[in-house]
Amino acid sequence: MTRTPIEPSVPSAEVLEEIRNQTPLVHSITNTVTVELVANTILAVGATPAMVDIEGEAGPFARIASALHINIGTPSPEQRVAMTEAAHAAVDAGTPWVLDPVAVGVLPVRTALAQSLVELRPSIIRGNASEIIALAGLGGGGRGVDAADAVDEAQEAAYSLAVRTGGAVAVSGPVDLIVDAERTVRIAGGHSLLTRITGGGCALGGVMAACVAVHRDPWEAAAAASDIYGQAAEGAASVSAGPGEFRMRLLDSLAALWPAQLRVQEALV
Amino acid sequence: MTRTPIEPSVPSAEVLEEIRNQTPLVHSITNTVTVELVANTILAVGATPAMVDIEGEAGPFARIASALHINIGTPSPEQRVAMTEAAHAAVDAGTPWVLDPVAVGVLPVRTALAQSLVELRPSIIRGNASEIIALAGLGGGGRGVDAADAVDEAQEAAYSLAVRTGGAVAVSGPVDLIVDAERTVRIAGGHSLLTRITGGGCALGGVMAACVAVHRDPWEAAAAASDIYGQAAEGAASVSAGPGEFRMRLLDSLAALWPAQLRVQEALV
Amino acid sequence: MTRTPIEPSVPSAEVLEEIRNQTPLVHSITNTVTVELVANTILAVGATPAMVDIEGEAGPFARIASALHINIGTPSPEQRVAMTEAAHAAVDAGTPWVLDPVAVGVLPVRTALAQSLVELRPSIIRGNASEIIALAGLGGGGRGVDAADAVDEAQEAAYSLAVRTGGAVAVSGPVDLIVDAERTVRIAGGHSLLTRITGGGCALGGVMAACVAVHRDPWEAAAAASDIYGQAAEGAASVSAGPGEFRMRLLDSLAALWPAQLRVQEALV
Repeated sequence: MTRTPIEPSVPSAEVLEEIRNQTPLVHSITNTVTVELVANTILAVGATPAMVDIEGEAGPFARIASALHINIGTPSPEQRVAMTEAAHAAVDAGTPWVLDPVAVGVLPVRTALAQSLVELRPSIIRGNASEIIALAGLGGGGRGVDAADAVDEAQEAAYSLAVRTGGAVAVSGPVDLIVDAERTVRIAGGHSLLTRITGGGCALGGVMAACVAVHRDPWEAAAAASDIYGQAAEGAASVSAGPGEFRMRLLDSLAALWPAQLRVQEALV
Repeated sequence: MTRTPIEPSVPSAEVLEEIRNQTPLVHSITNTVTVELVANTILAVGATPAMVDIEGEAGPFARIASALHINIGTPSPEQRVAMTEAAHAAVDAGTPWVLDPVAVGVLPVRTALAQSLVELRPSIIRGNASEIIALAGLGGGGRGVDAADAVDEAQEAAYSLAVRTGGAVAVSGPVDLIVDAERTVRIAGGHSLLTRITGGGCALGGVMAACVAVHRDPWEAAAAASDIYGQAAEGAASVSAGPGEFRMRLLDSLAALWPAQLRVQEALV
Repeated sequence: MTRTPIEPSVPSAEVLEEIRNQTPLVHSITNTVTVELVANTILAVGATPAMVDIEGEAGPFARIASALHINIGTPSPEQRVAMTEAAHAAVDAGTPWVLDPVAVGVLPVRTALAQSLVELRPSIIRGNASEIIALAGLGGGGRGVDAADAVDEAQEAAYSLAVRTGGAVAVSGPVDLIVDAERTVRIAGGHSLLTRITGGGCALGGVMAACVAVHRDPWEAAAAASDIYGQAAEGAASVSAGPGEFRMRLLDSLAALWPAQLRVQEALV
C-alpha cells in the first residue's frame, strides 16, 4: 500500500437530506430473490425505485433516471441484455451507476457478464470480500453468496478495481471498507442480522444508488450509504425478535431516520 | 362532462361476503417486484391466487379461473406472450379481467403491449392518473411508477377508456375515482403509507380481480375493492411504526376485515 | 396396503443440530412468487440458500451444493432448462435433491416437466395431496395451488411414487404424511395460517432440502423437516395477529428454534 491515507469525510447527513429533498429516481435491474426488499429499501431511504429490466426499455430509462443499479444475482438472458443496454446508456448519458457482482467468480455466465460490465466503469462497485477479490481477478470467489474472505483481504483487489474504473469500490462485512484510487475509509456499524436475511447486501446496493443519485462523489456517496444503512440496521436489530422482524424493522428504521439523528461516524482510516 | 351523475351504490359488504363464501380463483400475471404482495393480498381478502405466467399455460388457466389479473410492471418477452394468450382466453371464456398498465406511456415496449391489451376490453383498468391519461392517449405518463398528475385530471381519460372498453376504469390516488360509461364515484380512504411501499397499487389491482370474480358489475366491483382496500389500509396504518410494518399489517387488516365491520362509504359523486 | 408399518423414528433434533453445525449450501430453483420466503426460510433454519436458475450455471452449481431444491411454480423456459440441467448434475454428483411439483396435473407445460424430472429420481418429492395424486398418474390435480384432495387419499399415490424413485414422498396437509417404499409416518403440527400465506408449502420444500443436505436418509430428513417446520409454525401462529405477521414470525420462530426445544413428536403410523 503506497497510498497516503487522506482524512476521510463521510457526509452522511448531507446526502440523506438531499435524497429526502430530491426524491431521486433510481433505476434498478436486480435479482428476483430480493427485488422487493431492494425496492422497499430505496423507498424507505427516500428515493423512488423503478425496476425496468427488459430489452428496449432499460436503455431509455437509464437515460432519464437519476442513478442506475445493476445486481447480477439471477441474470436471465433477457436481464443480461437489459443490463448491458442500461449500463451503456448510463455511461452515455452521464447517469451514475452501481454494480453489485453477486457470486462473481463462482459461476461462469455471471462472471463473464460482470467482467464486461466493469469495462463500462461503474461509479460504485459493491460486493463482499470474495466477490471483490474474484472480480479483480485475484481469487476464486468463495461458494457464492456469502463471503469466505475477510474484508481486509480484499483491500488490494478493491484498490485495483477502483483504479481501473475511476470510481469507488465498497467491500461489505462486519466493518465496511470503501476505497477509491486515493481515499480509504472503514465504516463500523450494521448488525450480524443483515447476514441472516436474504438481500442484506443487495439492499445496500440500492441505497448506494440513491446516494450517488444526489451526490456525485462516488466514494463519499458509497461511504454515506454504508453509514446510513448501518445505523438503520443497528436501530432495527435493537427492537427485533429475529430475522423476520429485522427485515421489516430495517425499512421502518430507514424511513424514520432523519439527517440530524445520524450519529457522527468515527471513521477509521 | 355531459353525463348525469347517478346516485352511486358501492356494495362493499356484499362483495366481501361473496369473496369469503366463494373463495374465487384469481389468475394473476404480474411483475416480479410485487408478485408476493399481490398473492398475499388476494389471499388476505379471501380469494385464492395462482400466478400462471407462461406460454401454453396462461390461456387454459384463464378459462378455468374466476377472474384474470394482468399487471405489466416487468413484462418479459415470455410474460408478454402469456398475457396476450390469457387475455384472449378470458375474453373467449367470459372470464372478467383486470388490466394494470404500470408505467404505460413512459416506456415503449409496455406501451405497445398495453394498447393491444386495451383492445381486448378489460372489465376493469386500474392505474394512477398519469397511467390512465397516457393509456387514453391524452398525455405523456409521468416518470413511470408514481403519478405526476392528479386524479381529477384523469377523469376525461378514464371516461374515454371506459367508453372504449365497456368496462370500468379506476384512477388511484388520495381519493380514488371509479367510472364507467354512465357512473362516477369517488372513494375516500386509504393512507399515504400505500405510496411508501412498493406494490400498494399492484395489490389493489389484485383485490379488484377478486371482487369482479364474484360480482360481475365491474364498476361496482372496482368501487367495492377500492373501499375495502382503503379501509384495511387505514386500519393497518393506525397500528404501524413505518412502511415495513404497514406492509405486514395491511395483510392482517384485510384478513381480519369482516363485511359487517365495513364503515358505510360516504361516496362522493 | 400390504406393507408392515415400521416403528417410525423422526430424528428432528439431530437433523436440526447438524444443519446448524454444517450450514449446508442449498441450491434452489424456485418460483418468482415465493422465492424470497424460500430463501429466508432456508436461512432461518440454519442453511445457506443460493438461487441459481440459469442455463450454464445451474448444472455446475448443483455439483458443489449440499442439496438441490426444484420448485416448478412459475417454470419459465429458461428455468425449465436450468431445472433439467441441475437435476441431471445432482444425480451425477450424488447431490440429494427435492422436487416440489406445484400444480402438476392442472397445467400442461409443468406436468410434462414434472414427469421428466421424476424420471431422475428425486430424493424427496413434496406436494399437496392433489399434486401427489396427479404426479403418480392417479387423478386430475385439483384447481392448481391448493389441495382439493385429503392427505390420506394420496397415500397409494405417494407409495407408488416412492417405489418409482427409491426416495421419500411427503404429502402436506393438516397432518403431513411421509412415506418411502418401506416406511410411513404422519406428522401432526403446523397451523392453518400456513394455508393463508403464499409459499407455506414452498418454504417447507426448502427446509426439506436443508435437512436432506445433512442427513442422507430422505425419509427421515423429510419427516424431520415436516416436524421442525410444523413446530416453528405453531409457535409463530401463537403470537401472530394475522397472516402478515405469521409470515414474519415463522422466520423468527424457525431461527429461534433450538434442537433441545423440539417437542418429541408423537408420530402416528
